[in-house]
Amino acid sequence: MPQLRVAMAQIDTTVGDVDGNVRAVREWARRAAEEGAHLALFPETAVTGYPVEDLALRRSFVDASKRALGRLAAELADDGNGELVVVVGYVDRAPEREPAPTAPGGPTARRDLPQNCAAVLHRGRVVARYAKHHLPNYGVFDEYRIFVPGEDLLVVRVRGVDVAVAICEDLWQDGGPVQKAGDAGAGLLAVLNASPYERNKDDVRLELVERRAAEAGCPIAYVNAVGGQDELVFDGDSLVVDAGGRVLARGPQFTEALVVADLELAAADTSPSWVGGVKRVSLGDEPVPAYEPRGAVHHEPLPDVADVHAALVLGLRDYVRKNGFRSVIVAVSGGIDSALVASLACDAIGPENVVGISLPSGYSSQHSRDDAEDLARRCGFEYRQYPIAPMVEAFLGAVPLTGVAEENLQARVRGTTLMGLANQEGHLALATSNKSELAVGYSTLYGDSVGGYAPLKDVPKTLVWELSRWRNAQAAERGEQPPIPESTITKPPSAELRPGQTDQDSLPPYEVLDAILEDYVEGDRGRGEMIEAGFDAAVVDSVLTLVDRAEWKRRQFAPGPKISHKAFGRDRRLPISSRWREPTSVAQPAPPVGSGDAAAETLT
Amino acid sequence: MPQLRVAMAQIDTTVGDVDGNVRAVREWARRAAEEGAHLALFPETAVTGYPVEDLALRRSFVDASKRALGRLAAELADDGNGELVVVVGYVDRAPEREPAPTAPGGPTARRDLPQNCAAVLHRGRVVARYAKHHLPNYGVFDEYRIFVPGEDLLVVRVRGVDVAVAICEDLWQDGGPVQKAGDAGAGLLAVLNASPYERNKDDVRLELVERRAAEAGCPIAYVNAVGGQDELVFDGDSLVVDAGGRVLARGPQFTEALVVADLELAAADTSPSWVGGVKRVSLGDEPVPAYEPRGAVHHEPLPDVADVHAALVLGLRDYVRKNGFRSVIVAVSGGIDSALVASLACDAIGPENVVGISLPSGYSSQHSRDDAEDLARRCGFEYRQYPIAPMVEAFLGAVPLTGVAEENLQARVRGTTLMGLANQEGHLALATSNKSELAVGYSTLYGDSVGGYAPLKDVPKTLVWELSRWRNAQAAERGEQPPIPESTITKPPSAELRPGQTDQDSLPPYEVLDAILEDYVEGDRGRGEMIEAGFDAAVVDSVLTLVDRAEWKRRQFAPGPKISHKAFGRDRRLPISSRWREPTSVAQPAPPVGSGDAAAETLT
Repeated sequence: MPQLRVAMAQIDTTVGDVDGNVRAVREWARRAAEEGAHLALFPETAVTGYPVEDLALRRSFVDASKRALGRLAAELADDGNGELVVVVGYVDRAPEREPAPTAPGGPTARRDLPQNCAAVLHRGRVVARYAKHHLPNYGVFDEYRIFVPGEDLLVVRVRGVDVAVAICEDLWQDGGPVQKAGDAGAGLLAVLNASPYERNKDDVRLELVERRAAEAGCPIAYVNAVGGQDELVFDGDSLVVDAGGRVLARGPQFTEALVVADLELAAADTSPSWVGGVKRVSLGDEPVPAYEPRGAVHHEPLPDVADVHAALVLGLRDYVRKNGFRSVIVAVSGGIDSALVASLACDAIGPENVVGISLPSGYSSQHSRDDAEDLARRCGFEYRQYPIAPMVEAFLGAVPLTGVAEENLQARVRGTTLMGLANQEGHLALATSNKSELAVGYSTLYGDSVGGYAPLKDVPKTLVWELSRWRNAQAAERGEQPPIPESTITKPPSAELRPGQTDQDSLPPYEVLDAILEDYVEGDRGRGEMIEAGFDAAVVDSVLTLVDRAEWKRRQFAPGPKISHKAFGRDRRLPISSRWREPTSVAQPAPPVGSGDAAAETLT
Repeated sequence: MPQLRVAMAQIDTTVGDVDGNVRAVREWARRAAEEGAHLALFPETAVTGYPVEDLALRRSFVDASKRALGRLAAELADDGNGELVVVVGYVDRAPEREPAPTAPGGPTARRDLPQNCAAVLHRGRVVARYAKHHLPNYGVFDEYRIFVPGEDLLVVRVRGVDVAVAICEDLWQDGGPVQKAGDAGAGLLAVLNASPYERNKDDVRLELVERRAAEAGCPIAYVNAVGGQDELVFDGDSLVVDAGGRVLARGPQFTEALVVADLELAAADTSPSWVGGVKRVSLGDEPVPAYEPRGAVHHEPLPDVADVHAALVLGLRDYVRKNGFRSVIVAVSGGIDSALVASLACDAIGPENVVGISLPSGYSSQHSRDDAEDLARRCGFEYRQYPIAPMVEAFLGAVPLTGVAEENLQARVRGTTLMGLANQEGHLALATSNKSELAVGYSTLYGDSVGGYAPLKDVPKTLVWELSRWRNAQAAERGEQPPIPESTITKPPSAELRPGQTDQDSLPPYEVLDAILEDYVEGDRGRGEMIEAGFDAAVVDSVLTLVDRAEWKRRQFAPGPKISHKAFGRDRRLPISSRWREPTSVAQPAPPVGSGDAAAETLT
């Protein structure tokens, strides 16, 4: 059987930075060539970054992507790496001959028909292209909006091995490219991905790749992107799995890497039978001379909680870097949310780039101030205090605010102070609200919710505690000082906006709240199902009402990294103006339409 | 030729208010029956409201829609209106036999397969259903995300006339239901719509209906929804156009109405030839006894600017009402944006439900204060003044802010005051930023941009002036006092955050700015195209940079009514983290991939 050394470059590209991304591909291709690879795979739309969103609708953007690809092919040859076969994702437009499918056009039709493509580069040329067949249009994905699907499978002969190419969602959908790759007798299926991290998705992905490799009857080389992009974090974890389900190589998570694997692959049929919808391109039948394979890379995926922490750190680091910031500012209250955010920021960009400010009011307890200061000392970030009493008093002297409006005022004075310092000193302001608060609207719009990025946006409160404990334990294991004060973790949570206030004055215990939210937000379950599952009806009702009513606040909240199956933001799109309330009776299935109808006569 | 009296009920439903919407359909069906109609048409998803967004993914929601539909059919008969044939939009799920198309499922597959449906109700029964074939997934639409497309056309025989049914986007796409309706020999094509208002779209829609009626070879009855729903405004303007392009009836815009038309239609073929993919249901072959037709309703569409004004008023009124507010609060500066917002609010919900507050600083000119007070007196809303100097001074005494950070501070003190009063008194706070400001980021996040709804979000500054002049002229025509002070319209715009500041210190003249923005934002044109079109390169560069950099601010901005081809919000989805900058050279088309490549050999 012919051998191939396959290098999967799981790299961190930036959306729109076409020149920078091409430089990165060139550099990682050089490393692959140095490692003796014959085939180098790069992630989905590595040339443009992923996801490009509506940039795909701009002609100048698609042109730039195409031009950069041609330049890249030439440069790889200039570098002396023209023999290396490179497969890389980019954005192209549909060839004239492919008619535009109906849906993404519409009356406000696009002027172009962009496609999510993979190109094969060899000897200074772009020798073939493949357009993604299956365009995800659920959850965070809007690909049907911006791309038209491809129709043909691409099979490229590389040193006597037929390599089929597919892109991300192509692998998740039954039939299509995987089946065609099998029918076409491919010796290897190369899949380029930009598959965002979700908790526990690594296991799902591994099972999927195993199943698809069996279906295709050949190994799959699965290369995934790395890095944070707005609300998404790509975790790498590139894989090679053979048709028998054996994992031949596995890359690390949350870090750029070249994952090299020596594979023995089925020899290509030199006169393959014709298979409809398959385009074949040959770069040569001559197999690689036999060589001694090296041991492949085998990284174990991170355990749960550790992987969430890594995702949050990478998401934050890349948001800061890709948006041109060097430092962040966070309001540390002594509470657990701001403590975790500050600790994450220190892990992401170093404590020397983190400013923590304490904004105590008359209701702030001494232990809160002590905890905030202790946190700063443990983490080593710059810490300052700005008591808010003078500003709050000035407002109350001029505007008659009481009750909740007065509580909100305190939060907004803090928000204004935080943003003022962020503007003055050039920091990115971090919001500290967690997913549970965001769900029920337990925060003040333009107050404690201010900031350009919200690391805990998709982290429920119970997981905030878990992550804090995990981070402290990890520090202790390494013989380091745990970053988060123990009392911050153990004390009852409070917004401290009035004397003796705790979160549980207004909300059910967080274990109960988070369990209901998981069903309602992530599971899209109705009230009836939740009560059948054993939740208390009154608690469910109060939580669902809070969640439904807080949509308008969420709509104005900062982006934050998705770590769950369903995050707030583009992942969950609900109307603000909505009178929908979950029915109070357990739903009975409605009768089928038209059933038992004597009046209607069906003619054909 | 058989006659039919067709009533198109262009009604204003609320998303999620299934009970209320069904009550409205029942009430308008009663009116249609009183008018002697044989066939009553209601808008797309009138039972659930439009758009339902991800509510469609919840089983309890789809069940509620189905149950409500069955109840509605029974209630229409109970009301004695069972003989009236009612066609109404609702959300259903796909029948088991229809396999789910690939795309909207995906790995995070939905538990249900919702469809955007029309049902035919007759004699207490749901006698037939039709599922929309073409699911718009561009602009503001995400229907491919939440619905699966239908496959069969529905033709219902009503009093000897074959009535084909289609839904909204079905009409915009070539082929499909319109062509099938022609092939099936339909005598009438009934199209249920929820087609959002856009400037000049009424003309486009009329032309479309004319063209499609010719293609189908029969009249089209086009019923459209009315009302505001978050960022959309539906304008009604229901139409009947015959196959020769004659407009037989046209409803009013921006108001609920029953548009009744007496039609003479082709008699159904009693033994129609079989047409694939057409489901036929007969409710009777007996034609209506001949009767004297009445003159049909013929409303002229509103002229430009008048229609924009009407859209803004309806959008604001419905946002207030559908979200349970009774009153609004707006910060009136004496400038044009806040003046127009206050005037729109008075038109929408009455001056007795509007509170205007003036928040002067040391930089506020006397003419600004006078203009704000004059505006309040002309419009008749409650007006109060809260000077912000004490709060600003308290901040500056505690936090060292200078320059832009100090300017932002003033805006945020105003935002905090506005929101405090909104919370204290239960008003909806209105944001006053316009589209030009939002485009270039000329506003302070959490400052002048605060509010739950932004009436001018999609209104460029030049149109703000036009609308203000139009509204004043309209008042003068009616012999009323023009609401907006003349000096507010004529003075140079200024944020008044430092002495002598005007907008044009930082921005090009608004006529130039708005023209560039129209190309870049609405047209998705690249830099090269704009410069070719005659814009100054340096001005284009500075504007594009401002627009690209302000994405993070826009993401946290309130919803506001879409009036243009492309609004900010869900209509234009761009990454925040993006290094894409328009190429400084005019783009040359890239060479086609794989062209002239000697190394690659195509096998099949």
